[in-house]
Amino acid sequence: MLAELRGLNEECGVFGIWGHEDAAQISYYALHALQHRGQEGAGICVKDGKKLHVVKGEGLVNEVFSGEKLSHLTGNSAIGQVRYTTENGRGIENVQPTVFRSTTGSLALAHNGNLVNAAELREHLERQGSIFQTTSDTEVLAHLIKKTSGTLTQRDRVKKALSMLKGAFAFVIQTEDGLMIAQDPNGLRPLSLGKLGDAWVVASETCAFDLIGAECIRSVEPGELITINSKGLHSDRFAEAADSAMCSMEYVYFSRPDSDIDGINIHAARKRCGKQLAREVHIEADVVTGVPDSSISAAIGFSEESGIPYELGLIKNRYVGRTFIQPSQELREKGVKMKLSPVHQVVKGKRVVMVDDSIVRGTTSKRIVNLLKEAGATEVHVVIASPPLVSPCFYGVDISTDSELIATGRTVDEIKDVIGADSLTFLSTEGMLASIGRSQEMKNCGQCLACFTGEYPTEIYSDTVLPYEKEIVR
Amino acid sequence: MLAELRGLNEECGVFGIWGHEDAAQISYYALHALQHRGQEGAGICVKDGKKLHVVKGEGLVNEVFSGEKLSHLTGNSAIGQVRYTTENGRGIENVQPTVFRSTTGSLALAHNGNLVNAAELREHLERQGSIFQTTSDTEVLAHLIKKTSGTLTQRDRVKKALSMLKGAFAFVIQTEDGLMIAQDPNGLRPLSLGKLGDAWVVASETCAFDLIGAECIRSVEPGELITINSKGLHSDRFAEAADSAMCSMEYVYFSRPDSDIDGINIHAARKRCGKQLAREVHIEADVVTGVPDSSISAAIGFSEESGIPYELGLIKNRYVGRTFIQPSQELREKGVKMKLSPVHQVVKGKRVVMVDDSIVRGTTSKRIVNLLKEAGATEVHVVIASPPLVSPCFYGVDISTDSELIATGRTVDEIKDVIGADSLTFLSTEGMLASIGRSQEMKNCGQCLACFTGEYPTEIYSDTVLPYEKEIVR
Amino acid sequence: MLAELRGLNEECGVFGIWGHEDAAQISYYALHALQHRGQEGAGICVKDGKKLHVVKGEGLVNEVFSGEKLSHLTGNSAIGQVRYTTENGRGIENVQPTVFRSTTGSLALAHNGNLVNAAELREHLERQGSIFQTTSDTEVLAHLIKKTSGTLTQRDRVKKALSMLKGAFAFVIQTEDGLMIAQDPNGLRPLSLGKLGDAWVVASETCAFDLIGAECIRSVEPGELITINSKGLHSDRFAEAADSAMCSMEYVYFSRPDSDIDGINIHAARKRCGKQLAREVHIEADVVTGVPDSSISAAIGFSEESGIPYELGLIKNRYVGRTFIQPSQELREKGVKMKLSPVHQVVKGKRVVMVDDSIVRGTTSKRIVNLLKEAGATEVHVVIASPPLVSPCFYGVDISTDSELIATGRTVDEIKDVIGADSLTFLSTEGMLASIGRSQEMKNCGQCLACFTGEYPTEIYSDTVLPYEKEIVR
Amino acid sequence: MLAELRGLNEECGVFGIWGHEDAAQISYYALHALQHRGQEGAGICVKDGKKLHVVKGEGLVNEVFSGEKLSHLTGNSAIGQVRYTTENGRGIENVQPTVFRSTTGSLALAHNGNLVNAAELREHLERQGSIFQTTSDTEVLAHLIKKTSGTLTQRDRVKKALSMLKGAFAFVIQTEDGLMIAQDPNGLRPLSLGKLGDAWVVASETCAFDLIGAECIRSVEPGELITINSKGLHSDRFAEAADSAMCSMEYVYFSRPDSDIDGINIHAARKRCGKQLAREVHIEADVVTGVPDSSISAAIGFSEESGIPYELGLIKNRYVGRTFIQPSQELREKGVKMKLSPVHQVVKGKRVVMVDDSIVRGTTSKRIVNLLKEAGATEVHVVIASPPLVSPCFYGVDISTDSELIATGRTVDEIKDVIGADSLTFLSTEGMLASIGRSQEMKNCGQCLACFTGEYPTEIYSDTVLPYEKEIVR
Repeated sequence: MLAELRGLNEECGVFGIWGHEDAAQISYYALHALQHRGQEGAGICVKDGKKLHVVKGEGLVNEVFSGEKLSHLTGNSAIGQVRYTTENGRGIENVQPTVFRSTTGSLALAHNGNLVNAAELREHLERQGSIFQTTSDTEVLAHLIKKTSGTLTQRDRVKKALSMLKGAFAFVIQTEDGLMIAQDPNGLRPLSLGKLGDAWVVASETCAFDLIGAECIRSVEPGELITINSKGLHSDRFAEAADSAMCSMEYVYFSRPDSDIDGINIHAARKRCGKQLAREVHIEADVVTGVPDSSISAAIGFSEESGIPYELGLIKNRYVGRTFIQPSQELREKGVKMKLSPVHQVVKGKRVVMVDDSIVRGTTSKRIVNLLKEAGATEVHVVIASPPLVSPCFYGVDISTDSELIATGRTVDEIKDVIGADSLTFLSTEGMLASIGRSQEMKNCGQCLACFTGEYPTEIYSDTVLPYEKEIVR
Repeated sequence: MLAELRGLNEECGVFGIWGHEDAAQISYYALHALQHRGQEGAGICVKDGKKLHVVKGEGLVNEVFSGEKLSHLTGNSAIGQVRYTTENGRGIENVQPTVFRSTTGSLALAHNGNLVNAAELREHLERQGSIFQTTSDTEVLAHLIKKTSGTLTQRDRVKKALSMLKGAFAFVIQTEDGLMIAQDPNGLRPLSLGKLGDAWVVASETCAFDLIGAECIRSVEPGELITINSKGLHSDRFAEAADSAMCSMEYVYFSRPDSDIDGINIHAARKRCGKQLAREVHIEADVVTGVPDSSISAAIGFSEESGIPYELGLIKNRYVGRTFIQPSQELREKGVKMKLSPVHQVVKGKRVVMVDDSIVRGTTSKRIVNLLKEAGATEVHVVIASPPLVSPCFYGVDISTDSELIATGRTVDEIKDVIGADSLTFLSTEGMLASIGRSQEMKNCGQCLACFTGEYPTEIYSDTVLPYEKEIVR
Repeated sequence: MLAELRGLNEECGVFGIWGHEDAAQISYYALHALQHRGQEGAGICVKDGKKLHVVKGEGLVNEVFSGEKLSHLTGNSAIGQVRYTTENGRGIENVQPTVFRSTTGSLALAHNGNLVNAAELREHLERQGSIFQTTSDTEVLAHLIKKTSGTLTQRDRVKKALSMLKGAFAFVIQTEDGLMIAQDPNGLRPLSLGKLGDAWVVASETCAFDLIGAECIRSVEPGELITINSKGLHSDRFAEAADSAMCSMEYVYFSRPDSDIDGINIHAARKRCGKQLAREVHIEADVVTGVPDSSISAAIGFSEESGIPYELGLIKNRYVGRTFIQPSQELREKGVKMKLSPVHQVVKGKRVVMVDDSIVRGTTSKRIVNLLKEAGATEVHVVIASPPLVSPCFYGVDISTDSELIATGRTVDEIKDVIGADSLTFLSTEGMLASIGRSQEMKNCGQCLACFTGEYPTEIYSDTVLPYEKEIVR
Repeated sequence: MLAELRGLNEECGVFGIWGHEDAAQISYYALHALQHRGQEGAGICVKDGKKLHVVKGEGLVNEVFSGEKLSHLTGNSAIGQVRYTTENGRGIENVQPTVFRSTTGSLALAHNGNLVNAAELREHLERQGSIFQTTSDTEVLAHLIKKTSGTLTQRDRVKKALSMLKGAFAFVIQTEDGLMIAQDPNGLRPLSLGKLGDAWVVASETCAFDLIGAECIRSVEPGELITINSKGLHSDRFAEAADSAMCSMEYVYFSRPDSDIDGINIHAARKRCGKQLAREVHIEADVVTGVPDSSISAAIGFSEESGIPYELGLIKNRYVGRTFIQPSQELREKGVKMKLSPVHQVVKGKRVVMVDDSIVRGTTSKRIVNLLKEAGATEVHVVIASPPLVSPCFYGVDISTDSELIATGRTVDEIKDVIGADSLTFLSTEGMLASIGRSQEMKNCGQCLACFTGEYPTEIYSDTVLPYEKEIVR
């Protein structure tokens, strides 16, 4: 499904590199590969000697960085972030990396995820005199690090601070003498470690490694704190690994098809989900089409298993940047179709299987079903390569509240009627788990199913709030 | 294959609309749908009363037009163009539409194609006192119209002028009281007529109609001159239709998969080419992958017919605009891969069928074969969904000179060795013609095969020159 | 008076250079010095070998040229223009230099001035088949050059073409092998020749020479055609010098105070006008203040002669570029003052002499008188350092039509009442002539007084139209 | 003297408004009037209900704010800043206003000045767990406010925090329910209170009031804390007023001539300084000229008193924004003169009195003397409208260290020789004090003379450092 069409968005993508003379430039290309994880802000912080220099701004990676700006970012270690922002997180002050200056050592942080005890920690810290300049969880960690007793080593202070955080988080931290990388105890958000020649790299997705020519070594482990400095790489733990619970939506929707998570390729996993769907339902139809871009793999799999030919029944119109002039409501009503065009000759007079990765509020599905019918499809069978979304996410996915989720309190048949499809099928939870292929029994290979089941892998604190409700707390 | 990676480029896309109060805005969206035909310049000229107002500039459609600029373009008729420019055609003065002011009536022209007798006509016109401000063929037509005797009606003057042109051309002309649309006698470049409510629209590709919600009526016929004004639409001829010769590369590579040319859908035609290829060659392999974006349809067809699974083995990295900072040669050599990333898990240890639409100089094919092998493919079988390119194009495709074409003077086996493939197969000319499905016998349904065969559908004048040699003539 | 506040604007400034390896960069700085003559468009055309390359655009010099664009303009000869545009002259196609391509030799032209027989010549040329792409007079000359018989040398063709033009014009022409410079027979617009080391330079104002470190040699003479090429500089005539008639407003208002015209420094001339004014009127007052920027010199002179102290009673607020957000009418009414602020402490309780260079429609004068009174001035005596403007200009000054000129059909006393001044004095024509110091008797040192007297130095053709009425003709 | 030419720069300008429905727009225009105080960053923070919204960025006011951005800043209270930045203060994170979020109430701060005990306070705060995101003094105040006991009212907490600051500071603070305004106990930086209809306004300079149509009420007093909220304006003290010590350089150089400080108009004060100079020295000369823009008033005064005519002998070339392409060193050496052009006819063969406001390193003075001599001046007598600068400033003026000041350890005669003048005269300290006209005896009308005398009005703490040395401390 199209990210632009609905409220299902990733919070961001992070990257880090240690030991490469072109650290900032490599980061620029890596962030470009992660651009799909956040289009609203980007930043890179390099370490030059002991000094941290940051360039960041609102917009796409190539809007934020000019050749000149990039050329000024010299140094052989860097971290970066691309950012998706919710309404409350707008503003240049929330773009990361965020730098914290201190006489005892400056820090820059880039973060992917969402803490469930952020409000509690903020209140606790404020009571002790901390003041906050951003609304991001990132700042909470910086304050916690600073508050811990000064007799500890820096690594121990960071470990102690990390151990107080609850929720989903993948942190990349640039210190004055090294890089620190942390993954939450459940391993909710993907974070991979790699090598680029002699340099170490870390990224939210392995597709960044491919673009820069790096090799993926392994995932950062739940509860692990990696420190990289002139003495080399040191792995440590700030917490026991809890039940591993990698976000299902990374496989279903967020990650790029050429990325791997824990060794499982996203395209392959999605294709297997599509095949499994075809085994779970039998549909008499003429063509299979996927909703670009994230549902293409599942559609190919469905076609292969069902024997129904795969066709390009929907074409995405690609808009460039924030300067595109959106059509007025009047023009939309007159028929101007942005984002998706149906391919008339492919669907006209045909029974169409429309494969999508998920349904959030249902409005988009309804619109696409309608597009296909207007273009002449005689039947539209919607098959969804994941189970129904029934619960909100507290771990960094900007999913709607449960009252907005079409699947909350509706039967599949009722949803089918709402979106106007001739039939509607969701992949079973078991089918999805088996297709993705993480073993639920293994310690480090679990999967978070909270949005499908309402069972959260972490405690949900009294102050746990949806990202878009944070403003109220302040 | 990727447009950015080689010298095979379309000259432009044109659009026109008559009788719609939002003429400029509709044109903006239509040009966006045609953006793939030219990324280096864009312009829209509206007629407001009898006055012509033009906004144009270098860059993408959304870079050239701001909401403010667009809002000033009021009027109910407009023409527009997106432009690909060769090295010699650079500069704001060559961006179209071009307006010619005259006390006897101003004109604005937008053009797609290339004249083979342009240099001859220019010299002829200059001898009679014409002076030129651009290097484009468009200006030649404007001068010819002006030079014809003043006693003729405007339509007759235009007809007389058009009859002197040789080569490929699709013109959309905005006059002070109407719209004129002309297609060359061989119908070399696509041009379709449609309706949007009561308004008439014309576009290089039907995908523009889909986006704005218009209905395709028919193709503009070879040798036809259509005049649309307050009295309605009038069809006329400036020349007998010659042997119809629609550009093959429109089906093979240029057009968007959701466009139709003469009722034939591009995706469907490409898929049939892929199927036909699978019938013409037998390959033992594990996966089929297409080179995005234009080869995806053929790859799907090849997979369907051969039974070898279709996978996303190559992912395109999407760059936005001209501000993207290209990696230095040094970074490229260090492994930074722009444009295409192989999907390791899909190709590792696999025998891969790599489907591409065509091979021009061979350098890109060599690079992609190499990418796949580095990613672990054990065998790479290249199959090309069109015949070998052996002759230059004089009709507006910026193809290399024959000395640069890898297929000129080389056997298929020799090409295979150059690109490092384990096998190489081209689609037969007969297979391509049959798959695309235009009937060669029918008057209006022929196909230009010049780049594959060296047989040109028009005379080639003494002054016919490759586009990039024009500068020498001046 | 402030250019932004009224309809009294210069058409443009031109520059040319021959024989300097940094031709384009020198042009960039020279055009910056001429920026006050036109803020709406700028362009530079260099000759590299025999090829002409042009970069131009709408906006200020530093908005049009980036370092990258400038670095691509290599070659040792260049011409440039900064452009003021009337409503009808908008659009990128009217920005100069304009390049005309021809097999017999390309030309680029930059022009300052206005032809009085342009419409007649256009019609004549169109009847012979010429077509125009711009609304500028520049194109007329290019067509005339082209139309003249081919047996003449290029220089003779240019001379013949120039001899057909009537009105005010200063042309700088870049040909494939040289630079040509022409001044109209009356010498209506300033144009100076200089040397920068071994290179020749030409500019509308000598302040451009100062900035680039060039030395002024002399003015280009009325009716002179200078040709500069590899053989050196050659001076010729295309017409007998008519009665010299340098535009008075150049001294009064347009030119920069540090420029000289025919050896007379502008600041010095204005100061003498101010002194003369003080001799022509006696005012009892406490302070003298000038309306910035162009009236400062006259105010200093008035103060010096009258003995009344000169003070900064009005301060200009400087806006940068076209992106400045203008206050709404509502905010203006609430008191937001753009452009000019009175200095309260300087004028409060004082009898103020307010020196301005001229009055066009009177609305601005009225506003400034009001500003001063609101700030506490007890009396405001307006003295104008030039005679009343009563006739329109046909030579390139975008002055209002006579019906809009406040001085047309009104006595000085009536004007005084309209603007709310306590007294109003204009400099006498004789006083102005004597103060500026061109000798009216000398052949080359006359002065155009048409806007003050209605006596035009050239014939006024039947087709002579105000610049803003040109559109009607087309 | 020209700000661009030397290291003598103001830190910034601040503005605040309470009770106006167009608060953000009024701030935009007011900041434009303060633009001369800082060109490197600008920001506005509005209070909408209880929420604070900020827009800020690097560049000029009109580069940072688009009409769209401004229109989103709704609310009836706002604060703003324009910023000059030293090398160490670069970066978007240092642009103000800075917002500090807290559950107990958010704050936004805008600051003009420099603390002398900032490093000490930072260290103290860090030891207690504070972490800093900027290198600005502003953040120190925010932390101090937060650290004070929670049982105090907000106003008392702010007073307590302010009382710990030493040095020069003018703060404008936006709280969730009001505006707070503070001036340091010595009143080192100007800060004026005004009314715009029913709304309260505060600004670094009164020229901002004139532009927006506000009336100046009085200066904010040394040690005063003004609170404005829905209950009205409340004046309070956080410290006893110390010896008043308004920065002399505000009169000499920084402030706009149309501003008043403590009721003394800047232009008038400078003119009196020029007159006094003419009384302190007798020079035989032909013309007086000022170095634009800040020395014009003194030059007018010198001319008036000495009877030597005032002329425009030097013209400033105005560059627009940061996009201007600076000439290469090579071009400069070839004679390209940026920033200042001499007016040849005015100075040629003349004995010139060149009036400047001050001399810092002397390099600029040397260059200008040289310019005038090259342009033909037979003698150049430099007169400086202030005493020699011999000591660094710790209060926010980015003056050079004493080792760079040409006047440190040199006699006037030696300086004269370095800059190549025929004579050199500085205004006496007594002459300056008398001319400016603040009474040294009065409590609130003293003047800081530290840069002329080395006697600082405040303690200089062990950690007092020059602004550009701050980086070392971190």
